[in-house]
Amino acid sequence: MRVGKLSPELLQELVLSHISVERDDVLVHAGLGEDCAVIDFGDEVCIISSDPITGAVTGIGTLAVHVACNDVAACGGSPVGIQVVLLLPESITEEQIQEIMIDIQTTAAGLGVEVLGGHTEITSRVTECVVAVTAIGRAPKASFVTSSGGQPGDDLVLTKGAGIEGTLILAQDFPELLPEFRVTPEVLDWFKGRLSVVKEGVHAARFGVHAMHDVTEGGILGAAAELTSASGLGCEIWEEKVHLPDLTKAYAVKLAIDPLKLLSSGAMLIATDRGVELVEELAGLGIPAFIIGRMTEDTTRRVVRRDGSSEEIPLFVQDELWRILAEK
Amino acid sequence: MRVGKLSPELLQELVLSHISVERDDVLVHAGLGEDCAVIDFGDEVCIISSDPITGAVTGIGTLAVHVACNDVAACGGSPVGIQVVLLLPESITEEQIQEIMIDIQTTAAGLGVEVLGGHTEITSRVTECVVAVTAIGRAPKASFVTSSGGQPGDDLVLTKGAGIEGTLILAQDFPELLPEFRVTPEVLDWFKGRLSVVKEGVHAARFGVHAMHDVTEGGILGAAAELTSASGLGCEIWEEKVHLPDLTKAYAVKLAIDPLKLLSSGAMLIATDRGVELVEELAGLGIPAFIIGRMTEDTTRRVVRRDGSSEEIPLFVQDELWRILAEK
Repeated sequence: MRVGKLSPELLQELVLSHISVERDDVLVHAGLGEDCAVIDFGDEVCIISSDPITGAVTGIGTLAVHVACNDVAACGGSPVGIQVVLLLPESITEEQIQEIMIDIQTTAAGLGVEVLGGHTEITSRVTECVVAVTAIGRAPKASFVTSSGGQPGDDLVLTKGAGIEGTLILAQDFPELLPEFRVTPEVLDWFKGRLSVVKEGVHAARFGVHAMHDVTEGGILGAAAELTSASGLGCEIWEEKVHLPDLTKAYAVKLAIDPLKLLSSGAMLIATDRGVELVEELAGLGIPAFIIGRMTEDTTRRVVRRDGSSEEIPLFVQDELWRILAEK
Repeated sequence: MRVGKLSPELLQELVLSHISVERDDVLVHAGLGEDCAVIDFGDEVCIISSDPITGAVTGIGTLAVHVACNDVAACGGSPVGIQVVLLLPESITEEQIQEIMIDIQTTAAGLGVEVLGGHTEITSRVTECVVAVTAIGRAPKASFVTSSGGQPGDDLVLTKGAGIEGTLILAQDFPELLPEFRVTPEVLDWFKGRLSVVKEGVHAARFGVHAMHDVTEGGILGAAAELTSASGLGCEIWEEKVHLPDLTKAYAVKLAIDPLKLLSSGAMLIATDRGVELVEELAGLGIPAFIIGRMTEDTTRRVVRRDGSSEEIPLFVQDELWRILAEK
């Protein structure tokens, strides 16, 4: 089968169609576009999300922690702790294991999150490191947020901008693709410092919003597709309103990347009927945010390009990073 | 590095020594011999454990669900739901993905546990299926149990017997090792029906016990080492008191296996000062249990063999299954 996440159709047919037990104490169940489960604990809820990261040692721990905690934050939860499953190839060294663990610990500590435990194993069944992080968070029962609560006419607010994570991966792991741009450690740190949406997620939930989705595979258009389909609605996204970091722009031009379809952990897409007010609130916290579109009653999803043309957003948006890496 | 779990020394040095943030709302932190974390949610606690299973398609889903839910039960928690991360090689077929998911769903449903979500991905970085399950459970705050609460003089009660999971794996995946024993589907079902300790774990927590540990890698001696070291005590295990299924006995003789060091998911080791009473209670639920040893103030750990000889139990007990598979 083809490398990558399962398509929504296959996920539905092979995986989700077999999910049958639904407990009363589970408030949000597994489903397309819902990355977290929510369990009732009285006045509070427990929010859980799992994500694996496969790849090189450099930065894998940091990324794995952010991606899982971001999912919890997209439900309006404060991440409490993480469980870490590390599956390592026989070629790994003790120093590399330590590097990954220090990375994980430093990132978690920066978010006020505890490493709760997990499992570390050397196995011949992986050819590169696999880190699977499960994040556990808490939120008042009255204020947790899902992907499915969007309302027609809602503003779609995006924090930070497009392609943050994808640009970092390109700059860090494939500098040869853009030799004319000098990638300094400061540039890498700028992107690394923007991978978390925990602050905006927790704050937006308190502010009161209809739906949230963090921007991962498939970029902003992928997040818009997941959020709108979970809400049973459509949307319009205005490309000209989406902020692009300079380096992201440079990659977009050089590699003919659509930055709206590029991995952007660190950006949160939020549906709210008080977009202007939310943008101001977030600015007060030092988080740049922009109204980049709106939810529509009509279930078609459209992106309006800078040149005024318009195209439909598919349900499954393939990430530009996978295309670039496949063409390498 | 050598294939397998990290040794306790390496785990301490490379992984646990970097764990620094300890939150007030986390009641049980990561540590040697503690397989679960416990988070405070008011009157209740949320109990979390993660375990990966790497191996063949047949039965991998069932095993993964039991192993994670058993850890939660060893803390006295009722498992509520599981998160499933499936990493699959490119050679996998749609039918095999369905087989794994049906296995997972059926096993979870049998335990009253919901499949909460997760992540399914085809990746070139695994050569065989990897299933990592995180189980989430709940328990009243007053009654959760850890590995570290054992008291000197406590009875050590074992449910079911030795080598349940290891025997099933040998019979299912390597029938050629014991051709003279006809392994019928009924025999396999007998073992498969005994892989869960959820019932005894939840019941023992209500009964009120000092410490529990489910019997996984390293078998009964491994579980005894983890439980006693977490409690800062020693123990004496009496081999003659440990029940052995007939097929386990046959393998032990044929392959010179020590069944006390063989994987035995499905068996729970329980420290309590009311062993006789607990054995009777469990018998009333249809769960056979036996007092197989006791906790000692003296921190040495000893097993008294059938012939009266005695040997020390190391902190890290290598599982007999890995030895047999390595010799194949």
